[in-house]
Amino acid sequence: MSASPAVRVGAPDADLRLATGLRTAVRVPASSANLGPGFDCLGLALGVYDEITVETTAADIVVEVSGAAADEVPRDGSHLVARAVVRGLEFAGMSATGLRLNCVNVIPHSRGLGSSAAAVVGGLAAASALIEADGRRPGLTEDELVQLSGEFEGHPDNAAASVLGGAVVTWMTEDGGYFARRVSTHPAVVATAFVPEIQSSTSVTRGLLPDAVPRGDAVFNVSRAALAVVALTAEPDLLYAATEDRLHQDYRGPALPETHALVTALRDRGHAATVSGAGPAVLVLGTAELGEADAALAAEHGFVMTGLPIGEGVSTLS
Amino acid sequence: MSASPAVRVGAPDADLRLATGLRTAVRVPASSANLGPGFDCLGLALGVYDEITVETTAADIVVEVSGAAADEVPRDGSHLVARAVVRGLEFAGMSATGLRLNCVNVIPHSRGLGSSAAAVVGGLAAASALIEADGRRPGLTEDELVQLSGEFEGHPDNAAASVLGGAVVTWMTEDGGYFARRVSTHPAVVATAFVPEIQSSTSVTRGLLPDAVPRGDAVFNVSRAALAVVALTAEPDLLYAATEDRLHQDYRGPALPETHALVTALRDRGHAATVSGAGPAVLVLGTAELGEADAALAAEHGFVMTGLPIGEGVSTLS
Repeated sequence: MSASPAVRVGAPDADLRLATGLRTAVRVPASSANLGPGFDCLGLALGVYDEITVETTAADIVVEVSGAAADEVPRDGSHLVARAVVRGLEFAGMSATGLRLNCVNVIPHSRGLGSSAAAVVGGLAAASALIEADGRRPGLTEDELVQLSGEFEGHPDNAAASVLGGAVVTWMTEDGGYFARRVSTHPAVVATAFVPEIQSSTSVTRGLLPDAVPRGDAVFNVSRAALAVVALTAEPDLLYAATEDRLHQDYRGPALPETHALVTALRDRGHAATVSGAGPAVLVLGTAELGEADAALAAEHGFVMTGLPIGEGVSTLS
Repeated sequence: MSASPAVRVGAPDADLRLATGLRTAVRVPASSANLGPGFDCLGLALGVYDEITVETTAADIVVEVSGAAADEVPRDGSHLVARAVVRGLEFAGMSATGLRLNCVNVIPHSRGLGSSAAAVVGGLAAASALIEADGRRPGLTEDELVQLSGEFEGHPDNAAASVLGGAVVTWMTEDGGYFARRVSTHPAVVATAFVPEIQSSTSVTRGLLPDAVPRGDAVFNVSRAALAVVALTAEPDLLYAATEDRLHQDYRGPALPETHALVTALRDRGHAATVSGAGPAVLVLGTAELGEADAALAAEHGFVMTGLPIGEGVSTLS
């Protein structure tokens, strides 16, 4: 009912320094959020993973990056993963004299596939693993990872999917709490992602949403969001109806015309297509792999179609 | 994806007359709708049942009523159960020369406990049983019962709960389709109803709802409605958060001050209380029976507290 504490209860004011030479590696999945009707509350982890290695050093924060967007991110303490590691340590009342990070980015950046949430969750999980390796304090719980990553992101659905894996229902409270539960997806559910070359900014597209909406549209999405949980967990044949939305996708359509056109074309073919996050990627949920005709349709719109397993939650590799 | 047909496909234009002397009895549960965030889409059958006996006769429609509101309802073909029986027969391309109905009303009327939905569902189910007894055409399917009762009610959540039993997720389509799925409630979930002496009209209280709502409130309810399915089926400890609402209860509060006050008082005690339907009854969902203190609180507000099993769907007794 109340938020998790921003600072852990019982963590002493004076911090504990981690020893140098501690090392951990974590694997963290991509995610799709805002699934259909579930704006800010329905997320799905996707089986594409970034790998992050973190080592405690005597001084400085050094970041090595390879893979997606490697040339576009800072290489110091302002790097998102580094900030998340520092925040995770701070939350537990700990710190490091220096850090060396190695990030192998596989998740495409700025496509609506949760790369920033994965960076945050990966950094926090790495901090947790370092704390556990140190042994003087317990690592972060899943609830704490959801809370801290939600604070970074401002919405919990991507980050919680990266923490918990699978499909997640998330919610926020007025006092700044971020909460999530994983639901058991029906074994027949498969996901297909459509990724374009173009990038998008969540903050820009979020500005297209109106302050007030018709009550009928709100009620529409409420029913479909409840149905989405039924469809994902028990009756995947209902995924088409369960991914209908009136609260976000059409408002953002003009900013992402190709995304809007592809979602429409895929739904016209009977596929349960939704914008992934704030786009531009598109996600289809269903019970069968899509075929050549769908891949060709995607290509016409400038998207590459990729079947993806449902992702597992963040995990420590070493 | 499309609505059930208003007239069954394949039903011939010329109707078939039922023989006289056919007889059936059905039992149909009360229900609570608009559960928490789930305006028009989350319903729960309650273990209080009306019993309806219907017999085909040579002429006229005669209605005998005993129990709740027996003095307030018509005794001819305009009686709601009679209209539903006639509609059910018509849907299957059948008719009766006359009907005798006997209604034993146990569900309190005009309290927000779905008495009118139960009347409609009971009448339709009785029609279905008569058709099956006749043997020339099949009875109505559950999907058809949901559709036809939704058309009577204008919203499907009460009626679908009475059809399917248990907790239901319902949705509507623009072309007039009404749909529902029952979800498997967690075995620990128990319901407690609070019923006042005063009555209320759904049509009046529905008029208090605004045409537009803040987007944040819509998103709030979307997340809680998804959470409600998780809570009802898997994690009943989340029922409190899952029954939070910003789309209907507060707007209607001024019309039902005692209901509003009781919901607030019960929630302040940590109970997952919601208005039942459009009120004035109140429902609490939880994992434990409520106690003497809660009953006394209810009495202060003019309500009688009653623990209720979750209801079973409409069934034929003979």
